Amino acid sequence: MTGILYGVGTGPGDPELLTLKAVKAISGADVVAYFAKRGNQSNARAIVANHIRADQIEERLDYPVTTESHRHSEDYRTQISAFYEEAASRLASHLDAGRNVAVLSEGDPLLYGSYMHLHQRLTVCYPIHVIAGITAMSGSWSAAGLPLVQGDDILTVLPGTLDIEELERRLLDSEGVVIMKLGRNLPKVRQALINTGRLDSAIYVERGTMAAEKICELREKTDDSAPYFSLILVPGWSTRP
Amino acid sequence: MTGILYGVGTGPGDPELLTLKAVKAISGADVVAYFAKRGNQSNARAIVANHIRADQIEERLDYPVTTESHRHSEDYRTQISAFYEEAASRLASHLDAGRNVAVLSEGDPLLYGSYMHLHQRLTVCYPIHVIAGITAMSGSWSAAGLPLVQGDDILTVLPGTLDIEELERRLLDSEGVVIMKLGRNLPKVRQALINTGRLDSAIYVERGTMAAEKICELREKTDDSAPYFSLILVPGWSTRP
Repeated sequence: MTGILYGVGTGPGDPELLTLKAVKAISGADVVAYFAKRGNQSNARAIVANHIRADQIEERLDYPVTTESHRHSEDYRTQISAFYEEAASRLASHLDAGRNVAVLSEGDPLLYGSYMHLHQRLTVCYPIHVIAGITAMSGSWSAAGLPLVQGDDILTVLPGTLDIEELERRLLDSEGVVIMKLGRNLPKVRQALINTGRLDSAIYVERGTMAAEKICELREKTDDSAPYFSLILVPGWSTRP
Repeated sequence: MTGILYGVGTGPGDPELLTLKAVKAISGADVVAYFAKRGNQSNARAIVANHIRADQIEERLDYPVTTESHRHSEDYRTQISAFYEEAASRLASHLDAGRNVAVLSEGDPLLYGSYMHLHQRLTVCYPIHVIAGITAMSGSWSAAGLPLVQGDDILTVLPGTLDIEELERRLLDSEGVVIMKLGRNLPKVRQALINTGRLDSAIYVERGTMAAEKICELREKTDDSAPYFSLILVPGWSTRP
């Protein structure tokens, strides 16, 4: 009998935004695996630290590169692909030995999560349970108390990596908009919001639901620095029934 | 001192997809409020039933109408608006008396939730904490084990109530798509998926994460009946790094 693979959403940062099901899967696993940037602590592990036992095996999966800036290059693709292959085979060894493995995934496992790369590689051969997690965007609009979409509103989730023309086209064509992956894309994203007349309703959320959470109107933010864990919310709902 | 209003996401249906924070807010509240359709049990209350104590006050908020079919009519708007006003003032009485009130909201409170109508009316006068919940779409793609979007993919969330031309335009212009509010809109939505060549990858999820969950490829579903708690997922991610 092989073990079961659990893809476990840890939520956006607040340890209390973990689900009961996630706590059970983490506590019951033989192996707890998580991604991390070399030299840094794993954010996902930090969120669930209270639920990890000393007798569990931990598998830390260190990304081979520290930035996605050259992510369209052949070299990057080769390296990252080899990394996911190796990570999947490390977990497969545990599953083959009958050990249950919980892979931690910040936010929700199947929405822009690194876990997806393991899922695709292991789903054919092993039983998998995916446990949904609170997404970063959901944690952020809740922390901001910002109603996002209602009724016939359309919600669009945009990576900040898109070019400015594409960002503008989408901003003009949707009620509620969430812009993820800000980082160095902030100046471009801000300009797209200005050009489409949507700057004034945009809310900037940095490290939503974490201890260092910061929420402000984007027009009040004058600098251009935005960490990876930041996003912009543009609410779509303005009418009452 | 007035009480605190908690907008509490109950998640999509599985009682274990409740967050630790939601459990704490529900257990600690003096009043637990929830929406329901007249003559039916409240789905939100059923999800959290294990955490409600006998000594808590319960406020059941019965919708005045049973269908949204005439929701653009003046009569519907007048009725539903009066209902939300009355519900908000019932909760305000508790808050004025210093009682903490937890309003249950299926899925996430600020994403297409009825809670939003109370939030808008009470946010000026009372302290509010919103507790994010697992959305129906997140619960559904996790139950289906379906990676949805990755990297530069755009995710679009569409209400099935849109007309077919609009659905088709959006389906042709987004990687990952979630179509909510199926119900009687299923035949139209199916036709839009056929016309845009996306039927073959569409997954139908009925009552995702609930006991009566049903998941299938949409092309295998031959009938046109779809309950309110159903949605369609069209994955956007097809490549590996």
